[in-house]
Amino acid sequence: MQDFIYRNPVQIIFGRGKAAETGDAVSKLGKSALLVFGKESIKSTGLYGRIHQSLAAAGVRAADHGGVKPNPLISHVREGIAKVRAEKLAVVLAVGGGSTMDAAKAIAAGATVDYDPWLFFTEGKRPGGALPVVTIPTLAATGSEMNGNAVLADSVSGLKLGMFSPHCYPAVSILDPELTLTVPKEQTVNGIVDTFSHIMEPYFGGRETDAPVQDRLAEGLMLALFETANRLAQNPQDYRGRADMLWASTVALCGIVQAGRGPAGWENHMLAHSIGALTDAAHGACLAVVMPGWMSYASLTKPEKFDQFAERVIGVKGAQNGVVQLKMLFSQLGAPVTLGQLGLKEQDIPRIADNVLKSVPGGGSLGPAGVEAVLKLCL
Amino acid sequence: MQDFIYRNPVQIIFGRGKAAETGDAVSKLGKSALLVFGKESIKSTGLYGRIHQSLAAAGVRAADHGGVKPNPLISHVREGIAKVRAEKLAVVLAVGGGSTMDAAKAIAAGATVDYDPWLFFTEGKRPGGALPVVTIPTLAATGSEMNGNAVLADSVSGLKLGMFSPHCYPAVSILDPELTLTVPKEQTVNGIVDTFSHIMEPYFGGRETDAPVQDRLAEGLMLALFETANRLAQNPQDYRGRADMLWASTVALCGIVQAGRGPAGWENHMLAHSIGALTDAAHGACLAVVMPGWMSYASLTKPEKFDQFAERVIGVKGAQNGVVQLKMLFSQLGAPVTLGQLGLKEQDIPRIADNVLKSVPGGGSLGPAGVEAVLKLCL
Repeated sequence: MQDFIYRNPVQIIFGRGKAAETGDAVSKLGKSALLVFGKESIKSTGLYGRIHQSLAAAGVRAADHGGVKPNPLISHVREGIAKVRAEKLAVVLAVGGGSTMDAAKAIAAGATVDYDPWLFFTEGKRPGGALPVVTIPTLAATGSEMNGNAVLADSVSGLKLGMFSPHCYPAVSILDPELTLTVPKEQTVNGIVDTFSHIMEPYFGGRETDAPVQDRLAEGLMLALFETANRLAQNPQDYRGRADMLWASTVALCGIVQAGRGPAGWENHMLAHSIGALTDAAHGACLAVVMPGWMSYASLTKPEKFDQFAERVIGVKGAQNGVVQLKMLFSQLGAPVTLGQLGLKEQDIPRIADNVLKSVPGGGSLGPAGVEAVLKLCL
Repeated sequence: MQDFIYRNPVQIIFGRGKAAETGDAVSKLGKSALLVFGKESIKSTGLYGRIHQSLAAAGVRAADHGGVKPNPLISHVREGIAKVRAEKLAVVLAVGGGSTMDAAKAIAAGATVDYDPWLFFTEGKRPGGALPVVTIPTLAATGSEMNGNAVLADSVSGLKLGMFSPHCYPAVSILDPELTLTVPKEQTVNGIVDTFSHIMEPYFGGRETDAPVQDRLAEGLMLALFETANRLAQNPQDYRGRADMLWASTVALCGIVQAGRGPAGWENHMLAHSIGALTDAAHGACLAVVMPGWMSYASLTKPEKFDQFAERVIGVKGAQNGVVQLKMLFSQLGAPVTLGQLGLKEQDIPRIADNVLKSVPGGGSLGPAGVEAVLKLCL
């Protein structure tokens, strides 16, 4: 195990109908809030109205900031910061998926600095504080509700970049599995794939290979995730399956499973981001295509960990057999597993590779040849 | 999964030689500290001197409060509170095992109230705050370094009782595996058994049976614990094994594995406490004797979970086979697995049962007949 520092101060309020406690939770942090959300669909489901009602009942003045995009834009964050300042708002409340939560974190941190918040992402500038953030995830996927990470995009430069700040941990996250009961099948599957990717990237790609506690926790979480995926495939309305899925996705990226693992290469995210940039396919779909290919490739030179995964998680002998079974599982769930299913052909590979090399200098640990080789295995 | 609230704000500083950072960590919280410790052995190992040196270098004034007993006494806590008040100390620093950390928490909370701190334990009174606590565990066992629990004893009434307060989470815990390299074999094994008990009590005894994420995390941690136990049995000087053991014991009781599981009966701890009270045997030794007996008994009426444990953790079919293998494992590690090995005979059982029923009204979920039946299975 490597040396590490771990601290995750997020308060999780987990349970059926807990969204009704939003007003109480926010009012302990401040008497006014910016309500950040994405699509207008939270209005048709009634959630928007219930949140406003809860805030009003707790004496919290609220201003709306809807319209967060699936790839959340820094320009929209800047507008949010302007609203916070103009209306002197105390808390930033996110209701939505990872994009919405990430945008809320950037607004909360950006409101405390006198420079442009995009510098958090491009120049590694870090806020000295942040307004308190409350999140209410409506999707089980990113784990943003229990970490200090944010990923934003800039439509001018075309860049999509991440940041971390200890000030960006939500103060409170309300995890209400009922809100995820109506998530459509495709998004549910994308969330499962995304959660798996958050466990597998540090598991396979973390610098530390001798980490039995982290290995076993990660393997346990992967096993639980697959069990939950099968349960939800049979009945998307299974509250308990939705609850398991929400908690698994939250734990996956809260840091406890990765602590001591050392930095990971996040090669699958690197490739998936570039495929997403060129196709507009969902993040989870891109990951489902990339991961089996990357695993096949990486296991050629470092088979031990992939053998271990095959045996302990998939229940078969041999790294490549494990990868094939994983690919079949993704496919059975309804995820795409080839570039072709995303509308891409072999001749598109140079264009994807070019985007990768522009986003991550040299293509990270894979190198230019590795990037191309993995993409070919994803055809 | 049941509804839950989870928040664990402890900062973990984990790594080789990190005890040298004590002064820095404490000085961020206050410029004076009560140094709580147990035996004088921390002086002969040089740790005491190094801690004082680190505190002095960081400008922290320190007062000693040694002599914490293995069953930490409330009278000693009262003396610690008096020292904190007389010397106007800002931080409580614990260097030692679970007893020392628990005493430090009670001192830190007790210093903020105007009533006797034993009322936290007997009457459920709760502090509104606490001085910041810093812990440096020298043993891997209790997990006290990452939770808000404390267990204390009163020599007048003979009671040993627990409390929890969100104010009792350490602000910082420094986990330096090097400090545990010299832990003798017997204490190392007790720590392994104790850690296993913290995972298994909620796993088997938690009210919620449909909790696949919690199950898989617990099973993963148990598997890692057994691997680590074997590694340390071969070489107690294996730094990496010690690091894995320390992190496993910390994660076991930090709450993330149990969240959503609902309350557990903690039957094994109930029985082990009474055996310990009558024999002075170490807590881990009492647990090693009790757990296989309780598991055999409980699996008679509720075999499913014990079948699952046998298959997933031990790798055999059938609940009772799993229990036998666990007993053999404990025995191989050097732990006692029968009451006889603790010097107790069948005729002592009524006396133990009597103590149990006095400590936990009715013997908890077991009932008087169950208490006696389990104890007989431990002969």
